Amino acid sequence: MVQIDQWNAATAVAASPTSLYQFDPNRWRRCLAVAQELEPADLLLSGGQVINVFSGELERANVAIVDGLIAGVGNYTQAAKHLDVTNRFVAPSFIDAHVHLESALVWVSEFARAVVPHGTGAVVTDPHEIANVAGLAGIAALRVAATGLPLRVGFTIPPCVPASSAESSGAILTTHDIETALAWPESVGLGELMNYPGTLAGDADIAAKLQISTGRRRDGHAPGLRGPALQAYAGSGVGSDHESTGLEEAREKLRAGLMIMIREGSTEHNLTQLLPLVTDLTYPRCCFASDDRDCHTLLQDGHIDAILRLAISHGLDPIRAIRMATWNAANYWRLDGIGAVAPGYAANLVVLDDIQRVTVGLTFYAGQVVAKDGQFLGTVDLVQAIPAELRDTVRLAPLGLNDLRLSLERAGEAVEVIPGQIVTKAIRVTPIVRDGWAESDSNQDLLKLVCVERHRATGRVGIGYVRGFGLRRGALASSIAHDAHNIVAVGVEDADILMAIETVAGSGGGLAAIVDRRVLAHLPLPIAGILSDQPLERVAASYAGLEAHARELGSTLPSPFGLLAFMALSVIPEARVTDRGFLRVGQS
Amino acid sequence: MVQIDQWNAATAVAASPTSLYQFDPNRWRRCLAVAQELEPADLLLSGGQVINVFSGELERANVAIVDGLIAGVGNYTQAAKHLDVTNRFVAPSFIDAHVHLESALVWVSEFARAVVPHGTGAVVTDPHEIANVAGLAGIAALRVAATGLPLRVGFTIPPCVPASSAESSGAILTTHDIETALAWPESVGLGELMNYPGTLAGDADIAAKLQISTGRRRDGHAPGLRGPALQAYAGSGVGSDHESTGLEEAREKLRAGLMIMIREGSTEHNLTQLLPLVTDLTYPRCCFASDDRDCHTLLQDGHIDAILRLAISHGLDPIRAIRMATWNAANYWRLDGIGAVAPGYAANLVVLDDIQRVTVGLTFYAGQVVAKDGQFLGTVDLVQAIPAELRDTVRLAPLGLNDLRLSLERAGEAVEVIPGQIVTKAIRVTPIVRDGWAESDSNQDLLKLVCVERHRATGRVGIGYVRGFGLRRGALASSIAHDAHNIVAVGVEDADILMAIETVAGSGGGLAAIVDRRVLAHLPLPIAGILSDQPLERVAASYAGLEAHARELGSTLPSPFGLLAFMALSVIPEARVTDRGFLRVGQS
Repeated sequence: MVQIDQWNAATAVAASPTSLYQFDPNRWRRCLAVAQELEPADLLLSGGQVINVFSGELERANVAIVDGLIAGVGNYTQAAKHLDVTNRFVAPSFIDAHVHLESALVWVSEFARAVVPHGTGAVVTDPHEIANVAGLAGIAALRVAATGLPLRVGFTIPPCVPASSAESSGAILTTHDIETALAWPESVGLGELMNYPGTLAGDADIAAKLQISTGRRRDGHAPGLRGPALQAYAGSGVGSDHESTGLEEAREKLRAGLMIMIREGSTEHNLTQLLPLVTDLTYPRCCFASDDRDCHTLLQDGHIDAILRLAISHGLDPIRAIRMATWNAANYWRLDGIGAVAPGYAANLVVLDDIQRVTVGLTFYAGQVVAKDGQFLGTVDLVQAIPAELRDTVRLAPLGLNDLRLSLERAGEAVEVIPGQIVTKAIRVTPIVRDGWAESDSNQDLLKLVCVERHRATGRVGIGYVRGFGLRRGALASSIAHDAHNIVAVGVEDADILMAIETVAGSGGGLAAIVDRRVLAHLPLPIAGILSDQPLERVAASYAGLEAHARELGSTLPSPFGLLAFMALSVIPEARVTDRGFLRVGQS
Repeated sequence: MVQIDQWNAATAVAASPTSLYQFDPNRWRRCLAVAQELEPADLLLSGGQVINVFSGELERANVAIVDGLIAGVGNYTQAAKHLDVTNRFVAPSFIDAHVHLESALVWVSEFARAVVPHGTGAVVTDPHEIANVAGLAGIAALRVAATGLPLRVGFTIPPCVPASSAESSGAILTTHDIETALAWPESVGLGELMNYPGTLAGDADIAAKLQISTGRRRDGHAPGLRGPALQAYAGSGVGSDHESTGLEEAREKLRAGLMIMIREGSTEHNLTQLLPLVTDLTYPRCCFASDDRDCHTLLQDGHIDAILRLAISHGLDPIRAIRMATWNAANYWRLDGIGAVAPGYAANLVVLDDIQRVTVGLTFYAGQVVAKDGQFLGTVDLVQAIPAELRDTVRLAPLGLNDLRLSLERAGEAVEVIPGQIVTKAIRVTPIVRDGWAESDSNQDLLKLVCVERHRATGRVGIGYVRGFGLRRGALASSIAHDAHNIVAVGVEDADILMAIETVAGSGGGLAAIVDRRVLAHLPLPIAGILSDQPLERVAASYAGLEAHARELGSTLPSPFGLLAFMALSVIPEARVTDRGFLRVGQS
């Protein structure tokens, strides 16, 4: 019998069939034979405790694996290979119920390399970032890239590209595009219905998207919606929500029938607020989502495992937490064949050394060890399947300092950011006037927030005030700017803001921190202007450096770039600045 | 405001669209307007407590109904019609997760008339009874008959017609037939995979049926399966089971990933045994099923409401019980749009006067009152849609007393029935010999059990011994004989057995009780030999009379005809008598 510490890629069992989630009569017969103890398993996990997501118990049982599937859980003893998991715990690998892969800043294969060692076995991704830049072709590229990874990637097809008519995206996803993509076997439903104002108003465009998604799951997005508006939104056939920031908000949504995806992202921290929602009565209606986690967070903190650790440290029972992170998500999304350690399920498993601390010793995908003690064991081709048309997507009209002027009549309101949240407040402010224009004033933390249209070189620039970034000098810019992914910048000096924008544009997209007309830090994101083509670790280090530089410039936010990327998102209350200027969300 | 006791059919709101479960943009916009308090609802249920199946709570809220849907649950006040439900409870109407409609002995419309007043809003039916007689045409006839009823009828398409090769059915449902029927919008998945020995053996026929049902729910049937055999069966992709009779059996199945359908039928009483399975940890994986309830039981005892009463009287929390009987079943079967009192769901509701006693005051379907205080308010056409080919299906070869002789070499074993169960025991017995043949002997309750092939007039007769019927004289016969629906008979005197069989055959099918060559009671079942074309109440009275007569003949069983109908079912352990003779189930 192989002990865990001797296990390596070389001892792995034969490769699984690619059609892991399809019925295969030969594999079925092999499973039948192994389950009935007529043949030895390929691999037996012996001596551990199995987390049973159906009974909510720990079960002392061995797990017999055949051709990538679990053939049986019980007193099995015969196998070609044995792995001793005594004193360890066998759980289904974790599922992220709602994530935008692109938020990791790295290509799909690197995302997998980041999350698989943390025990993630499946994600449901809403590819609306790349869709806003590159439309259906962008989603198709992610789909191709996700094929063959040791990670099941389910797609929800975004219905709101652009997120609303207040944003200028690079591409529009038409109803026909959505219908095409919904028919892919990897598609699990309609993506988050972000345009809740349009939904509540009964827009014809929303009607068409509801029509074509009849009988499919529809992901929700209802930040702050309560009362009659929430009833109207939930009644539109949306099944879930991951935008709750308050406990009573989440409770009301749960009562209205929405599956509550408790979110813990890099910048969106909702778990501690929402955890009291989870009781004996409600836990079947709750699961976890990361929504947006950058690669630095993924490497340093983790993925769903980190969310589990946080939940358990706040008192959630570990088995219940794992049920929510596995079966609940799989069941909601109808991801048949994953989310349980039970016969007929894919052998997509984690072996945990410690259940309280969710220490992922091994990650299995299709019966193979794909990560061990935090190290990814597979091989992925970094630049596979990146189509050329996803490069050189930034098209900027010539920009001068005059384009960054903020008129007084547009300077009476500001966006106020809330640390740890992506919702903002709309506040009234008194502009700082110089030469008849409103200026940034770091003394009262009132800075210019700029959004430049960058897909069609229209030269359109929206400018407004923001409070809460805390920069004392310099400027930050980002071509990650949910959801339209124009270039968004914040800064004290206009010249630094301009240079930040130009630096980002010069690399075909990216992030930049500028001070005194000098590039402090710069992370090129040449894929669609939102993703790096570099290895995970390098991008994570560079991103961490950028965040550190932003804090050096005076920002007190935990993740200034993380938050900057949400400053133009027209579908999260209460205020934003898009390329069309200051926007009160929910007012049109 | 209308009080409940003034409510009648005349005050009902406008008829609902037939496409209740499809997206309709106009209806959607009306719901949006009502939900947001911009327009009055069609109907408002005011002042009651809503059973929220998501939060597990009672919620004081009004329910606003528009065009057959729930537009919102909350503080709504404006409506064209108001119904005061103060001091009452509003719950989703109940769902039977697994039933054979045909077991009610009445046509589909009469079944609806029987169950709707008991608060049933949906059933998942496995039409394998009619399929065994009439194949795909039989199922299609039920489907047509179910259209337009105030009851949602979801179909599972039976994969085992005949149930096994040990039975001689009237029709075979081919893989192609199953594929055709699975594509119907009313189809929710594959029916119960009864041929578990074939499944465990990896039969090619089963493989084909698993193949075509990929991605669909598959209903299970695993009586007594435990250990490795259960792992093999569950691993074949079956999702549920309703056959558990013991607590540990059910617990093991739940752990193996099967949704546990706790069954309480007319003859199958499993609830009190299984109820301890339901805990805070397991309740999401349990629901209720009636499997087989005859019309007399439905009228006198009830349907799912009766199961709820029993469960609550044994200590199950009423709200939890109702969640299991509604949302859990709907969620398992992916019956989108029913099973909750929440926005966007069909207004398929019950108003309960008493939650502990599950007193159904009103049943709503699509927002209309369809039953009140036990009275069905709709109109159904009794004989609608009964195709002529479902009549005159009994074809019997000439039968004489010589055909009923039991040879000694086949008389060493007997079926032993277990009151309240459909599983049986196989026991060894010493035959009573006269003239070289084995005879019935009422003194030791060892009676002849006869099964006559009746579809193709083959003249094939299977004969064996049964213990437990307790008849002192006379004979009973039934052309309801799961699943092949040949004619099964039990009796003391061969002449009475013969007459019982001929009486049944003479009416194109039916039930008969005979004593001393005299017809004591006879219920014709001319539709496929298993269903009456008469009104519910008449059939129920006649059936009750037959059962009473059987008890007069000495039977101590609670439901002698109910149990007789299972005596030829080749897929329930341990022993049966089919038209091919005595059978040990599981041995081939």
